[in-house]
Amino acid sequence: MKIGFVGLGRMGSAMAANLVKAGHDVTIWSRSLDQSSPPAASLVQAGARVAATPAEAAGGEVIMSSVSDDHAVEAIVYGEEGILDAPALHVSLSTISIDLADRLARDQGSRGGYVSACVFGRPAAAAAAKLFVVVAGGSNELDRCEPLLQAIGQRVFRVGDRPSAANLVKLSGNFMIMSAIEAMAEAMTVAEKGGVERKALLDVLTGTLFDASVYHTYGEILVEDRFKPAGFTAPLGLKEDMNLLDSAAAANNVPMPLLGVVRDHLRSAIAQEGADIDWTSVALAVRRDAGLA
Amino acid sequence: MKIGFVGLGRMGSAMAANLVKAGHDVTIWSRSLDQSSPPAASLVQAGARVAATPAEAAGGEVIMSSVSDDHAVEAIVYGEEGILDAPALHVSLSTISIDLADRLARDQGSRGGYVSACVFGRPAAAAAAKLFVVVAGGSNELDRCEPLLQAIGQRVFRVGDRPSAANLVKLSGNFMIMSAIEAMAEAMTVAEKGGVERKALLDVLTGTLFDASVYHTYGEILVEDRFKPAGFTAPLGLKEDMNLLDSAAAANNVPMPLLGVVRDHLRSAIAQEGADIDWTSVALAVRRDAGLA
Amino acid sequence: MKIGFVGLGRMGSAMAANLVKAGHDVTIWSRSLDQSSPPAASLVQAGARVAATPAEAAGGEVIMSSVSDDHAVEAIVYGEEGILDAPALHVSLSTISIDLADRLARDQGSRGGYVSACVFGRPAAAAAAKLFVVVAGGSNELDRCEPLLQAIGQRVFRVGDRPSAANLVKLSGNFMIMSAIEAMAEAMTVAEKGGVERKALLDVLTGTLFDASVYHTYGEILVEDRFKPAGFTAPLGLKEDMNLLDSAAAANNVPMPLLGVVRDHLRSAIAQEGADIDWTSVALAVRRDAGLA
Amino acid sequence: MKIGFVGLGRMGSAMAANLVKAGHDVTIWSRSLDQSSPPAASLVQAGARVAATPAEAAGGEVIMSSVSDDHAVEAIVYGEEGILDAPALHVSLSTISIDLADRLARDQGSRGGYVSACVFGRPAAAAAAKLFVVVAGGSNELDRCEPLLQAIGQRVFRVGDRPSAANLVKLSGNFMIMSAIEAMAEAMTVAEKGGVERKALLDVLTGTLFDASVYHTYGEILVEDRFKPAGFTAPLGLKEDMNLLDSAAAANNVPMPLLGVVRDHLRSAIAQEGADIDWTSVALAVRRDAGLA
Repeated sequence: MKIGFVGLGRMGSAMAANLVKAGHDVTIWSRSLDQSSPPAASLVQAGARVAATPAEAAGGEVIMSSVSDDHAVEAIVYGEEGILDAPALHVSLSTISIDLADRLARDQGSRGGYVSACVFGRPAAAAAAKLFVVVAGGSNELDRCEPLLQAIGQRVFRVGDRPSAANLVKLSGNFMIMSAIEAMAEAMTVAEKGGVERKALLDVLTGTLFDASVYHTYGEILVEDRFKPAGFTAPLGLKEDMNLLDSAAAANNVPMPLLGVVRDHLRSAIAQEGADIDWTSVALAVRRDAGLA
Repeated sequence: MKIGFVGLGRMGSAMAANLVKAGHDVTIWSRSLDQSSPPAASLVQAGARVAATPAEAAGGEVIMSSVSDDHAVEAIVYGEEGILDAPALHVSLSTISIDLADRLARDQGSRGGYVSACVFGRPAAAAAAKLFVVVAGGSNELDRCEPLLQAIGQRVFRVGDRPSAANLVKLSGNFMIMSAIEAMAEAMTVAEKGGVERKALLDVLTGTLFDASVYHTYGEILVEDRFKPAGFTAPLGLKEDMNLLDSAAAANNVPMPLLGVVRDHLRSAIAQEGADIDWTSVALAVRRDAGLA
Repeated sequence: MKIGFVGLGRMGSAMAANLVKAGHDVTIWSRSLDQSSPPAASLVQAGARVAATPAEAAGGEVIMSSVSDDHAVEAIVYGEEGILDAPALHVSLSTISIDLADRLARDQGSRGGYVSACVFGRPAAAAAAKLFVVVAGGSNELDRCEPLLQAIGQRVFRVGDRPSAANLVKLSGNFMIMSAIEAMAEAMTVAEKGGVERKALLDVLTGTLFDASVYHTYGEILVEDRFKPAGFTAPLGLKEDMNLLDSAAAANNVPMPLLGVVRDHLRSAIAQEGADIDWTSVALAVRRDAGLA
Repeated sequence: MKIGFVGLGRMGSAMAANLVKAGHDVTIWSRSLDQSSPPAASLVQAGARVAATPAEAAGGEVIMSSVSDDHAVEAIVYGEEGILDAPALHVSLSTISIDLADRLARDQGSRGGYVSACVFGRPAAAAAAKLFVVVAGGSNELDRCEPLLQAIGQRVFRVGDRPSAANLVKLSGNFMIMSAIEAMAEAMTVAEKGGVERKALLDVLTGTLFDASVYHTYGEILVEDRFKPAGFTAPLGLKEDMNLLDSAAAANNVPMPLLGVVRDHLRSAIAQEGADIDWTSVALAVRRDAGLA
């Protein structure tokens, strides 16, 4: 398929590479693109072409975008040389607000089409084409981009026909992760003050009802105090995920007290540890509040 | 081994049966014991003997107890014909407060010995000898009762040498379950109001990082609205588990805001739905607060 | 003094009238201005002149603005015929975000000058020139507009030299009001379920340490269930005040769990009662959660 | 009137002295009574007599008690030489649980009678007979003790005919105080990080809608950092008041999230500052969570 790919960060360049590898005809563009930059050069060597503008990259059947936030997506779509009027179906992979996803669906739905496709997984999973992809939009549009999503992920979940549904699931998923971290942090703290080692508690949890990646992965970080270097920083977790979900909850008048707890602990962790700390450092806020250094 | 078993509720009688089956010489007693009552009769037929008092049941090497709460344990240990001065090692299987576990450790430690052994699992798991057993106490005492714990469970976790550590892990585990339910309830509610079906969200969760029993089991209850009949009632979840953990947190000056959220939602669910409702009905409190009937 | 006044809602027209009455030479403008509209006609009769654009109204020494929100202020300042480059000192009376106040200070500070002056009081207080005015900005600027603020209020508080400090105090004040309402709502609910009438509790409070307007005014609304018609609607309280303060808290990494509680209860009240309800209806959310109809 | 007074702490001895001064025939007793102890000696010199047991002190028309907690009241009523069967009307002035008040009403109601009379005010107010007294019980009983309550307070509030109603109002009042402190702590913290001095914010509050003792008294402590020496310690505020109210809320299934917030901050303050700190130190927990030393 003739497609474009906009945004070549760690996630984006890995996904674009898998699309090239799957035999698609890929044209790339990124804001700070330099054909000699490592990701671009490597993609070009693999067969990708470079576009001069987002609009040019959107000349094929599908244009995929993977950028950092609402502002970056707005620039790509509504900015100069943007893809708003392009004929291609826009498959947005970025973590953006529900509001923006709804606006894109409105504005691009009547043009080339719009689909939200959100991914779960870190750069290593992206490189291995092992992402989980959550997608929402019209069934025609979803069918059209399905082969592309299969090429970047291990499994594709369809969650609704309103594109922003995928964004909501993505934000909800990250909220679920933060909730599991918060729960472990509180449980480990009360257990530790009562004489139980964190590791012993985690072993019981993962050995019984809690045998899932979320507890293994993040539980070990908490047991081993691996808050630096940050895998995913607390400010990103706060601003890109929790605050976006809070906005969606506010717009729908949904009280989410647990979301309030994790937002407060993220703020506290950043206030006390600085910005360059992993989002699991909510555990440090919990511990400090209990008088544990 | 010559042992006693006190408390023949659904959990207790199942565990006692497995101890008889494993070849131990078991003497049973329960408060409302009638030799012709079904559990007692069945145990007697399998080879158990019936004691006239708790003290008599505690005449062997080990006395295990599985009763409903602090008061019931206090009656068995400190009441008339109680086991306080018995020579047997007391292995307490009940969900009790940290305070009482510490007091029993103090009082029985210098006599026959005291161990806390808390179990995760429902009656069906107890019957199948598939319980998870969390145990704490002196290593000598733990070694002595290990064969008995193996006979009732699929795995035994040692979590410390202070017996109440096991109770703390048990309470923490139930808090972790409630936290996962709360998180799913909030996420499903915001998702539902944004156009995502609960089932679709759960499929994404359990298909990705959240592939654990706690999400499968309780997530399905939330998806299917199976709040009645109660598998474990909200008042029990509140009084026997969350309030006991809150007391432990208070005693150790550990703020636990997430525990506060689930306690408030349990209260709300009981206030609005009545006492005969499953503890997962915190989801009903979450939904109602968002205006969903 | 030759001044302009932009925004003629209930608050604005009352303040403008007092400025005319105090002898100032006032030119008015509002978005939907019609010289025959009651407030405009009445002001013109009292001696005010009407401008065709905000810029024209800002031709004197000071331009005061009192409009509904960030968007309205942005239109007046940065829009066509806006006051950005006017020579007049801009005294902003609207409830706006800290971000926008800081931006106006930056942009207008180097031109005509910028001051934030926030008022506490309802339309009746505005009509009687009994508002409380909280002001922040450079001391020169504050001295220049002091006579105008005295003309509309009973007392002027200077709270800092960064203009947004006044906005922050305004938002904090409204948060303090909501907090007092929340506290009364929780206390009255637990008291009511324990057999104490709401009125009896309020009498004790206001008869002892809590003898202040905030408890008298809002306490009586709670006692008498006067949630409709709304004096100040829940959606306005949520969006214009609590959410703006939450943004300021987020920007400064300040956890504010009590703010989280009142935001959740406002959402719940709106979800259950609809948008046309007073912000004191957080009490309805509190009561319903406790099973009180 | 011939009365007894049990409990001679700072509050008790001041109230007893005012009862003697008002012309009543007062017999005193306290657990650690020594006739030569300063309070006892001073009371005896003023005309009081000393009893050998609580029961002896309860030989007159009314027996008033003012002791530290549930255990102390239980000892006086149900202990050896207790007042359970005394003919005197028991007027309990202590801060005790709703449960115990209900139990006393049940047990003493059919004997000499029982009334709860809770006081607001510090020792200086007690000495000046300026306490606020909140009382509940049968109207006959209230009429009988009214002259005594007038002798110790500046105003008496009747809040219901179930005695524990007075205890509930007392606990609610202290919760309202803590809520005002929490609200000020959060507002001052966000204001301080935004460039507003705590004092400036407090001046606006107390100069507008918040002109009540609770804001003046506690606001100044927060402005001036007077957390030591403790006027009322954080552990007392937590255990004697907030936890008792939480128990009452739990018994009535009333969610009180704001109570949860202050309980967590009290725990945090104690965990970080130690036990010898004023209950206003919740402000230190709030500030630390925001990264302010």
